[in-house]
Amino acid sequence: MITVNEMAKLVGGSVQGNGDVKITGLAPAAFARDGDLTFALDEGEMKAAEKSKAACVLTRLKPSGFPKTVLIVNDLKESLVVLYNVVQKMKPSEKGTIHPTAVIDETAVLGENVSVGPYTVIGKNARIGDNSALGANCSIGDNVTIGSSTRLYSNVSVYELSVIGNNVIIHAGVVIGSDGFGFIPKGDRVLKVPQMGNVVIEDDVEIGANCCIDRGTFSNTVIGKGTKLDNLVQVAHNVKLGRNVLIAGQSGIAGSATVGDNTMMGGQVGVSDHVSIGKDVKIGAQSGVSKQTVRDGAVLFGCPAKDANEIRKQTAFVARLYKNAGKIRKLLKKFSE
Amino acid sequence: MITVNEMAKLVGGSVQGNGDVKITGLAPAAFARDGDLTFALDEGEMKAAEKSKAACVLTRLKPSGFPKTVLIVNDLKESLVVLYNVVQKMKPSEKGTIHPTAVIDETAVLGENVSVGPYTVIGKNARIGDNSALGANCSIGDNVTIGSSTRLYSNVSVYELSVIGNNVIIHAGVVIGSDGFGFIPKGDRVLKVPQMGNVVIEDDVEIGANCCIDRGTFSNTVIGKGTKLDNLVQVAHNVKLGRNVLIAGQSGIAGSATVGDNTMMGGQVGVSDHVSIGKDVKIGAQSGVSKQTVRDGAVLFGCPAKDANEIRKQTAFVARLYKNAGKIRKLLKKFSE
Amino acid sequence: MITVNEMAKLVGGSVQGNGDVKITGLAPAAFARDGDLTFALDEGEMKAAEKSKAACVLTRLKPSGFPKTVLIVNDLKESLVVLYNVVQKMKPSEKGTIHPTAVIDETAVLGENVSVGPYTVIGKNARIGDNSALGANCSIGDNVTIGSSTRLYSNVSVYELSVIGNNVIIHAGVVIGSDGFGFIPKGDRVLKVPQMGNVVIEDDVEIGANCCIDRGTFSNTVIGKGTKLDNLVQVAHNVKLGRNVLIAGQSGIAGSATVGDNTMMGGQVGVSDHVSIGKDVKIGAQSGVSKQTVRDGAVLFGCPAKDANEIRKQTAFVARLYKNAGKIRKLLKKFSE
Repeated sequence: MITVNEMAKLVGGSVQGNGDVKITGLAPAAFARDGDLTFALDEGEMKAAEKSKAACVLTRLKPSGFPKTVLIVNDLKESLVVLYNVVQKMKPSEKGTIHPTAVIDETAVLGENVSVGPYTVIGKNARIGDNSALGANCSIGDNVTIGSSTRLYSNVSVYELSVIGNNVIIHAGVVIGSDGFGFIPKGDRVLKVPQMGNVVIEDDVEIGANCCIDRGTFSNTVIGKGTKLDNLVQVAHNVKLGRNVLIAGQSGIAGSATVGDNTMMGGQVGVSDHVSIGKDVKIGAQSGVSKQTVRDGAVLFGCPAKDANEIRKQTAFVARLYKNAGKIRKLLKKFSE
Repeated sequence: MITVNEMAKLVGGSVQGNGDVKITGLAPAAFARDGDLTFALDEGEMKAAEKSKAACVLTRLKPSGFPKTVLIVNDLKESLVVLYNVVQKMKPSEKGTIHPTAVIDETAVLGENVSVGPYTVIGKNARIGDNSALGANCSIGDNVTIGSSTRLYSNVSVYELSVIGNNVIIHAGVVIGSDGFGFIPKGDRVLKVPQMGNVVIEDDVEIGANCCIDRGTFSNTVIGKGTKLDNLVQVAHNVKLGRNVLIAGQSGIAGSATVGDNTMMGGQVGVSDHVSIGKDVKIGAQSGVSKQTVRDGAVLFGCPAKDANEIRKQTAFVARLYKNAGKIRKLLKKFSE
Repeated sequence: MITVNEMAKLVGGSVQGNGDVKITGLAPAAFARDGDLTFALDEGEMKAAEKSKAACVLTRLKPSGFPKTVLIVNDLKESLVVLYNVVQKMKPSEKGTIHPTAVIDETAVLGENVSVGPYTVIGKNARIGDNSALGANCSIGDNVTIGSSTRLYSNVSVYELSVIGNNVIIHAGVVIGSDGFGFIPKGDRVLKVPQMGNVVIEDDVEIGANCCIDRGTFSNTVIGKGTKLDNLVQVAHNVKLGRNVLIAGQSGIAGSATVGDNTMMGGQVGVSDHVSIGKDVKIGAQSGVSKQTVRDGAVLFGCPAKDANEIRKQTAFVARLYKNAGKIRKLLKKFSE
């Protein structure tokens, strides 16, 4: 347990009311229980917080005559991140539970304090590190390695040979290690190129719901440390994503493309196969990146994607031309005569 | 049971042949059984209907000498919708069956006549209303509420605290309540913003296969009454969709966007975060809506999306310019001299 | 078992070292075991191959003094495809195993040597052909037919009445036969059009992870022989895909569209409803095809998609105009005076 006064020190905030109140959890007003810290962005949320069971309210506002302790901060979001992590660490670490219906191959090796949900299936020679937790109805293939303190939600499918690091979060419905799209049309048949590599997911990665990450054709597909994928993202075979890459929902990275550290993509971005994208690149939503090399720090937009500033200026130029459509028509007509 | 004559009254149709035939079901010719009503769009389908086991054929055609009873209507599709609902209501309500392999926490509360498929897992304090049915291999988190007469197909994942209304249909592979994409890059790390809100799905909603709906960051993500999502749609954290919104496949609505009642989106549309879209808006396929506010009744197209009519005219204008490319080149050259 | 010399004949390669070495498997260096053939694209991979347990290395390189047998070929990828298939056929056919936790309706009929993974559920009157294998946590609906030598990975959902052919591969998380997006807005309600058809998947099809294929409204949705879908592809109700069609990730084909044989689509392509696309068509990534008919052999790009060559020329023309923006502005000004 931690007092509001102690929390105030951690986030550089000031306390209004009783700072000795002890905090045991953190939740939005609607879900708050006795002893929880809650938070409020505006007056409406202050009222909800007042009515809630929470013991203290975190806010940027300075309410007067508020009946609960108030912790006043400058940056609500960042304070929440800090205090959420503090509260999470206070929780007694859950004791790992292997549900009796889990089907775990006798050659699989599970670390200490591992949780496995109902109806989850774990294959031969799989290894799962300490304190990791698997949800219900997951399927973990043969020779899969999962690190420690990693969490898989429900209905996740991990194909054979995949390697998943520590502190990784994988949301429901994700598929890791499926065959890449490798085919050779030959006469009236389409030959399948065998997909024999694997997927390597480094530490601290988060993968959104229903994402698909294909195994490498011969080598591996890599998701670098700290990289975060939103929902429904497609990562094709042999792709190498750097560290701390952020990719928003429904984007797709085609085969053998590489993406440098700290690069950010908006939603529904497409990256063509074998494209090499540098570090610290920003790519606007729905852009299609097909040029072979993108330099570090570039800001791109459009399909095909180009320098976002140039694209914006060119678009404005065309709009101006269009406004002068009548004048241009006359000019062309006059010139033709 | 209902006779063809009674059906004819319901849809304003006319009967050819024996109108006293009793109808017990409705199916396409290929799947029809004795006593079923089937239907035919054209002569080919009339032949299939003739060969089928069906007792009566619904059609706009007026066949002569047809050996089965024929129910002739003006609007085949709408008549089918009406008669399908009639036939559905005639069915003896299936008695709810809890498969013995379902893992249901002892604190969960199930209404009357609930069905739970094999290997489905239901968490603590979950509540499921009367006549609802859950398919196989679903995972229902702690404190989830599901209304009555709601159906979940197989492999659906519902995270904790989600609220699902009455008469909702959720197709296979859907993920509801996963963490939104909230991260703060800080030095060489990426901090995760805790996602503590939930998802609220109102009555009469239908959600297509493999859709993802994220929980709110602090409050909730809302899918309004009667709204229908096609397959593979992404709804990010804090989004509020109004009533009777129709969103076609693979569209994505980014964080905190709002969409008004009766708005329709084509496939693969993207809506940027915090955008506010009005009522009765129509958005063409693959459009990217990034302007902050879209007025009621707007018709949009393109990326960035603009008035569809203006976009069409501007596109035609550019095509005309291009046809005059030679003339323009000469004009610019002449002018330079 | 097969010797390296015998392999060399099959792929027109030459052997360096002992060609009598017997090969029992094929794997990348990292996963190779005693008796395996491995392969190397470059010097780095040759070193990995040297350190591996593999008995022989397939490569285009001609290493000197290499301590293992080397099989030198001109086309590494195609040789790999050939030899992979040879090695696969050498494997003793796995004996089908029905996991004791599989829930198989007593009216379902399974062929010889069928495998069913843990927690997979098979409905009434389902039929599964010889040598087919179903992964864990799948849900197979009533009256589904699956051919022989077909493989479903884990967490696959197949709705009632679907028909799946022989030698089909369906990756994890796929949903087949869900209701299409058919709704009629009527006053303040949205009526659901009953979806009563089914899905027919012909022989030799491969379907990527988390794809969605909707059942036909009244007839069927068809995926033609030899067609391959990448991950997260959406195929709407009543679509007919021809033979050997290749569709890259996250593309979507809207309702009732048809696609001819051998047509290829890049990633994130959208095809509007009722569009008819010919044979041997090539469609660039992110294109949106909305014209009613696309002729055989067309090459398309853009949204709305047009002849790729014309689009490229028009785009270059606009870029040239933009470079002359200053000149054009002056010209328009001069002309206005």
